[in-house]
Amino acid sequence: MQTFKVELRRTARPHEHLSLVPVIHIIGWFVTALGALMIVPALVDAAHGNPDWKVFSVSSGVSVFFGVALLLTTSGARLHLSIRQGFLLTTGIWVCATVVGALPLMFSGLDMNFTDAFFEAMSGLTTTGSTVMAGLDTAPPGILLWRGLLQCIGGIGFIAVGLAMLPFLQIGGMQLFRLESSERADKAVPQAGRFAAMLVLIYLGLTLVCMTALRIAGMNWLEAAVHAMTTLSTGGYSTSDSSVAHFQSPSIEWIISGFMLMGSLPFLLYLRTLQGRGGFLFRDEQVRSFLRFIASVSLALGLWLWFTSELAFIDAIRLSVFNVVSVVTTTGFASSDYSTWGDLSQVVFFLLTFVGGCTGSTSGGLKAFRFDILGLALKVYIQRLVYPHGAFAVTYNGRTVASDVFAGVLLFMGLYLITTAVISVLLAMTGLDLITCVSGAATALGNVGPGLGPIIGPVGNFSTLPDVSKWILSIAMLLGRLEFFTVLALFSPRFWRH
Amino acid sequence: MQTFKVELRRTARPHEHLSLVPVIHIIGWFVTALGALMIVPALVDAAHGNPDWKVFSVSSGVSVFFGVALLLTTSGARLHLSIRQGFLLTTGIWVCATVVGALPLMFSGLDMNFTDAFFEAMSGLTTTGSTVMAGLDTAPPGILLWRGLLQCIGGIGFIAVGLAMLPFLQIGGMQLFRLESSERADKAVPQAGRFAAMLVLIYLGLTLVCMTALRIAGMNWLEAAVHAMTTLSTGGYSTSDSSVAHFQSPSIEWIISGFMLMGSLPFLLYLRTLQGRGGFLFRDEQVRSFLRFIASVSLALGLWLWFTSELAFIDAIRLSVFNVVSVVTTTGFASSDYSTWGDLSQVVFFLLTFVGGCTGSTSGGLKAFRFDILGLALKVYIQRLVYPHGAFAVTYNGRTVASDVFAGVLLFMGLYLITTAVISVLLAMTGLDLITCVSGAATALGNVGPGLGPIIGPVGNFSTLPDVSKWILSIAMLLGRLEFFTVLALFSPRFWRH
Repeated sequence: MQTFKVELRRTARPHEHLSLVPVIHIIGWFVTALGALMIVPALVDAAHGNPDWKVFSVSSGVSVFFGVALLLTTSGARLHLSIRQGFLLTTGIWVCATVVGALPLMFSGLDMNFTDAFFEAMSGLTTTGSTVMAGLDTAPPGILLWRGLLQCIGGIGFIAVGLAMLPFLQIGGMQLFRLESSERADKAVPQAGRFAAMLVLIYLGLTLVCMTALRIAGMNWLEAAVHAMTTLSTGGYSTSDSSVAHFQSPSIEWIISGFMLMGSLPFLLYLRTLQGRGGFLFRDEQVRSFLRFIASVSLALGLWLWFTSELAFIDAIRLSVFNVVSVVTTTGFASSDYSTWGDLSQVVFFLLTFVGGCTGSTSGGLKAFRFDILGLALKVYIQRLVYPHGAFAVTYNGRTVASDVFAGVLLFMGLYLITTAVISVLLAMTGLDLITCVSGAATALGNVGPGLGPIIGPVGNFSTLPDVSKWILSIAMLLGRLEFFTVLALFSPRFWRH
Repeated sequence: MQTFKVELRRTARPHEHLSLVPVIHIIGWFVTALGALMIVPALVDAAHGNPDWKVFSVSSGVSVFFGVALLLTTSGARLHLSIRQGFLLTTGIWVCATVVGALPLMFSGLDMNFTDAFFEAMSGLTTTGSTVMAGLDTAPPGILLWRGLLQCIGGIGFIAVGLAMLPFLQIGGMQLFRLESSERADKAVPQAGRFAAMLVLIYLGLTLVCMTALRIAGMNWLEAAVHAMTTLSTGGYSTSDSSVAHFQSPSIEWIISGFMLMGSLPFLLYLRTLQGRGGFLFRDEQVRSFLRFIASVSLALGLWLWFTSELAFIDAIRLSVFNVVSVVTTTGFASSDYSTWGDLSQVVFFLLTFVGGCTGSTSGGLKAFRFDILGLALKVYIQRLVYPHGAFAVTYNGRTVASDVFAGVLLFMGLYLITTAVISVLLAMTGLDLITCVSGAATALGNVGPGLGPIIGPVGNFSTLPDVSKWILSIAMLLGRLEFFTVLALFSPRFWRH
């Protein structure tokens, strides 16, 4: 097997020919790998005597065939990626993986059309967790496992994109998170390979610990495996239509709350902590402000629930923590129908849909560091208004924040909200009501999962929406996951100019 | 009478003593003038035999007394304003004028408490137009006229603030609209005085033309006067609970549509056009993009209404134009309950609440030029992502856009949306539902008037809200009118430091 080494370089050659060869080559690797992975649900279905094992086997064969074909036609490609190739690759991988991931769903015994299968695979790979499937409690194990695997892969894929590609492409202020040279992936191959392997090990290790904890807390092995994978990836697919509420177990809810939080922290900091450069996690400004936010909102909402309901204090706090963490980390599990908690919680959960976790994690949304940067920018701006000639230095995590980071963060936020507005109007044109449109757009762009209202709220699902709405939401999930600019750059007329 | 000359200077003296004397002096002038103006509704009430003429007379006397007292205690003040004094003055005038404007409302025969009177006066002076009064159709003429006068003064006041103070204070990118030196208000007194007088004449002239047109179209003189004042100021107070729908007259609706549009264009361009530097109005980039936006949304919604209802084409277009113009110009008249037009229009009208007219007009909201600047910023940003070393120049209306304008515009938009979120949560804590909270926050911050939903929608009003909600909304109207930073700077700890 070829040593897998990709180099990224920010060149200054605007009129360079845009070669698709390395992009197709890398996509070929991913399609092959995804196809190979379908053997796992095939084996599980075969062991349970479910006829879908044939569907997984055939889908696997087809995917591996096309993947290898792509590899062979582009063999010998030099894997040095320019900026434009970086943009193409990131979007290309997600779209191709979604089509491949949709194959077993479409041909299984579940009778899903291509729209539903594509939506479900996109929702999986973007770790959104909105589902068009009803009847999960009686669904075959292979399909449930496949949905979990899609989120697991989507999660680790997004950590990789967030660590390597987004800072390289300078998306939305992400250049702030460029790795120090000692950790860069474009250095010597063995070191970069070891670095990537350790991150994957940490991710899978945490997933295994979560699975074991859930098994002990009372889930069966399949449920524990699926929930562990969809918890660490902050995806939110469940094995039951009623999500985590199905288990009615406080211990399961606490375990999942904890691991959702872990999935929404920067994975690089786990690695540094393991490497003995300890204390990193809780000294990181993003992590601190994120945890402070989660703690204060959970506590405030928990107290509110306690005062306005018949619940015991500890139950009110548990409900509040679980559902706040679930929405803010963009997981989207439901342990209770929070839309029945009263008007305040409706407003709060709607707004929480936009927040998101830390960058460098599996979370979507605006992300904690962008709020930090916005806060710093506002503070300096107001000081400059009053004292135009004062000097105000801005640092974040010990690094000076350059003006291009401020611009990137602010434009990202602006584009996020404008896209929310555009997607809302498009959804409204398909005949949905105000709350479904706006919360649907927000939940898809933030990769959260549930929206608000009777249709797509925490106890509903997306199966009854018109097909057009599902396509709009699929595009929204992709846009949100790849942080908008990565996809939109492809539509800039200059992108394709030689 | 002392020659009224105020000089603005951006000094570099952060440790200067912050003297309140000139601020109080100017506020004294305004309080006196507002008190004197109460003679008008007093005379009208007296002519109609309404006992409220006594209330207006007493309120007038009290206001003039306090105003003159402020003037005397600060006589001889040098009216050179520093930046910090500029901030204090702008917010101070609006708050003091609101208290003065609320006096006759509170003591009239209408039995309003202080909360309601303050809300109504704030809604008037910020030209928002949300009302807590029910039974307008039978309300005494003096009160109706006073509400109209408050919006008329608020409108011209905001044009002045938008031309002089906001560019001076560099609020939200407004330095882009600093006047050329030949037109600056801090030049020779006679010229600055002439300049201001001509703007006031244009504003009052357009109001008179509008009044005459409305009288001819069938309103009585009082109705025509009030609606003309609340149209040009894009305020939206009416003489009937059912707003403009009361008149059931297509010609009245077309007239008001036209003058609402005129109120939302930059008044400086009218002056330039009058001065023979013609063609300015339709060559201005902000005006062009604003009119293009209004035309396309009105047409699209009109066609949608035509297809989905029994209406004739021309009626569908008229309804669409009137209500789109009313919301986008932040006037807030209603000629129909657009919340019954279906789900699409709910989403569209909710989003239109944020848009606003042109800067330098009486409109609120985000304002057209900020969307233009955001669009330019996004375009350049995406080009830079793909070609990091390309050079991209940005001009707007022939001026180069500096990076501090981009930062100001983006931070303004960020702060606008964060404030919308915060006000929504605060309103939710007073027990209102999701749609009332979010649309109420948006309509108050944008100085529009009506929200969505059964309570504060186009056919509802704000009278039944709890008192706390009314105070929150009053603060929101002030924040939105003075473009946030003007008010928030006062709460920066550095502001008050010597």
